[in-house]
Amino acid sequence: MVQSNGNKEYYIGVDVGGTKILAGVFTKSLECVETTKVRTKAYRGKTAVIDRIKKCIFDVADEADIDLKYVRAIGIGAPGAVDSENGVIIFAPNLGWENVPLKKELEDLISIPTFIGNDCNVNTLGVYEVELHKKPKILLGIYLGTGIGGGLIIDGRLYTGFSRTACEVGHIVLDINGPRCSCGKNGCFEAFASRKAILNSIVEAVKNGSKTVMTEWLGDNLGEMRSRDLRKALKKGDQLVKKIIKNAAVYTGIAVANLINVLNPQVVVLGGGIIEALEDDMMPTILETVNNNAFPGSLKGVDIIATKLGDFAGINGAAVLAKNCINNSCV
Amino acid sequence: MVQSNGNKEYYIGVDVGGTKILAGVFTKSLECVETTKVRTKAYRGKTAVIDRIKKCIFDVADEADIDLKYVRAIGIGAPGAVDSENGVIIFAPNLGWENVPLKKELEDLISIPTFIGNDCNVNTLGVYEVELHKKPKILLGIYLGTGIGGGLIIDGRLYTGFSRTACEVGHIVLDINGPRCSCGKNGCFEAFASRKAILNSIVEAVKNGSKTVMTEWLGDNLGEMRSRDLRKALKKGDQLVKKIIKNAAVYTGIAVANLINVLNPQVVVLGGGIIEALEDDMMPTILETVNNNAFPGSLKGVDIIATKLGDFAGINGAAVLAKNCINNSCV
Repeated sequence: MVQSNGNKEYYIGVDVGGTKILAGVFTKSLECVETTKVRTKAYRGKTAVIDRIKKCIFDVADEADIDLKYVRAIGIGAPGAVDSENGVIIFAPNLGWENVPLKKELEDLISIPTFIGNDCNVNTLGVYEVELHKKPKILLGIYLGTGIGGGLIIDGRLYTGFSRTACEVGHIVLDINGPRCSCGKNGCFEAFASRKAILNSIVEAVKNGSKTVMTEWLGDNLGEMRSRDLRKALKKGDQLVKKIIKNAAVYTGIAVANLINVLNPQVVVLGGGIIEALEDDMMPTILETVNNNAFPGSLKGVDIIATKLGDFAGINGAAVLAKNCINNSCV
Repeated sequence: MVQSNGNKEYYIGVDVGGTKILAGVFTKSLECVETTKVRTKAYRGKTAVIDRIKKCIFDVADEADIDLKYVRAIGIGAPGAVDSENGVIIFAPNLGWENVPLKKELEDLISIPTFIGNDCNVNTLGVYEVELHKKPKILLGIYLGTGIGGGLIIDGRLYTGFSRTACEVGHIVLDINGPRCSCGKNGCFEAFASRKAILNSIVEAVKNGSKTVMTEWLGDNLGEMRSRDLRKALKKGDQLVKKIIKNAAVYTGIAVANLINVLNPQVVVLGGGIIEALEDDMMPTILETVNNNAFPGSLKGVDIIATKLGDFAGINGAAVLAKNCINNSCV
């Protein structure tokens, strides 16, 4: 797409995930004019992945017909623990990274000011700035994907806590006797309702003799199961998948109710691959469980919605991060 | 105590509980010069209780030898759901109150500007302003008494949420299959670690044949069990009470870890009658459980302490509320 006006101020938002890197070019009014996607290929190692982020940024600028000199800033949403002040990825198990100074490395490669945030925080920024026209006083975002994370915006600013690790909502314990979580604890929200937890539950049930169409498609260990495979199985009337997704929705409802009781947000937005694929199947159970478990006073007037931005929440939010930070109101 | 200087500016802080009303006179530098206590006698009804609050305020001013005309404002910490903006007690089961415009009723009786807050919020204000000399960026207060509640201060201001009901930390579900809570749900934090939950656990165990010194002192249904009776039983080496208090401490640790993972506070302060009486017995287990269940990144540099203000946190915080609100920086 060619530049549609003489307004030469752009931002690039990048969502770095464990499987793909998505980048978008945004105008200064945060309209997305072009997107590009490449695979992450994390197995090639850190330097290769950083080169692929650079490639994705150059590609999206090229596709949008803009010169990088008109890009004021780049924003990056990255998984795991992120020190956004210094632009360092502290720990990102999906990428196999520890203490990677991503801001510095990209600025050395591209010479454009770059700002880094946790992907769930950045997603929430995207929903707040781009999707919600009436800005809520307090917005809580919860994202169910491979893992589960969250973001919180209070009075227009990201709440990141004392050491910038707030909103690890996937690791609130919902049942001390529950299944083992990847973090080493038992019964975390993530151990009930992430894609990984759902996959484990299906594999376990199959081992114990249950039947599902999923194994016909993907083999007994479900290999590369995606969220959309779950939706396909539900459409086929698969009873095992139905039961496991229902259970995940109940625990999601409990977690949302807990968070409403503590944070009393105005809007709760749910997103991530699991919600994007299974919104129609999960939301009624989630809402019913929240209604049964949140304090009526805390729930009054609260909207609980699924984001419509899907995969694009991340690049939108990353563009917001870039614009805010370069204008000295860094979140 | 007579006025020690010519500085005629005072605040009165009042803590209204289900069993007693405590009031304190404070100088403008928030030094407490006198306190007075009366029983609440909630069974006499709303009007009688409001008269007793008035009596307690008059008594404490009299004891302190100050004329009420030098009291700039009164602050009240009250249990339950409080609309602090309008000074209305929305719902306080311990008092049997619903929609009581306490601010207006007291101002009509006493003609001094009066401000009302939730007791756990007010306690946290007291700890922040009076106990902690180095002010934390984010302070989370958790109070274990008859019930369990909390308060959160971010950058010096109380966080009360969208509809001013935030920090209902007693009603985060820790085990969906856990014991019934007074709120109607199962497995809330309050159903594991409040005085009421501990009492229920002991009574239940006795019914099932367990022995405890508590029943010798208080009868089989433990009648008016107080937190200090639990401490006495532990000192006697009572094994049943030891086991039940240990269990309460483990669940408290899980709840604190959950809240640290979500809020990433700088300081967590524990208080309330249970902690005041059982600090030495419970804190080691609480700290160990938090260490095992909070994210290392979120826990780094976080102090978890028990307040030393005891019963006085409430009146200190209520005086802070009064001073802040009359100076137009109402929390």
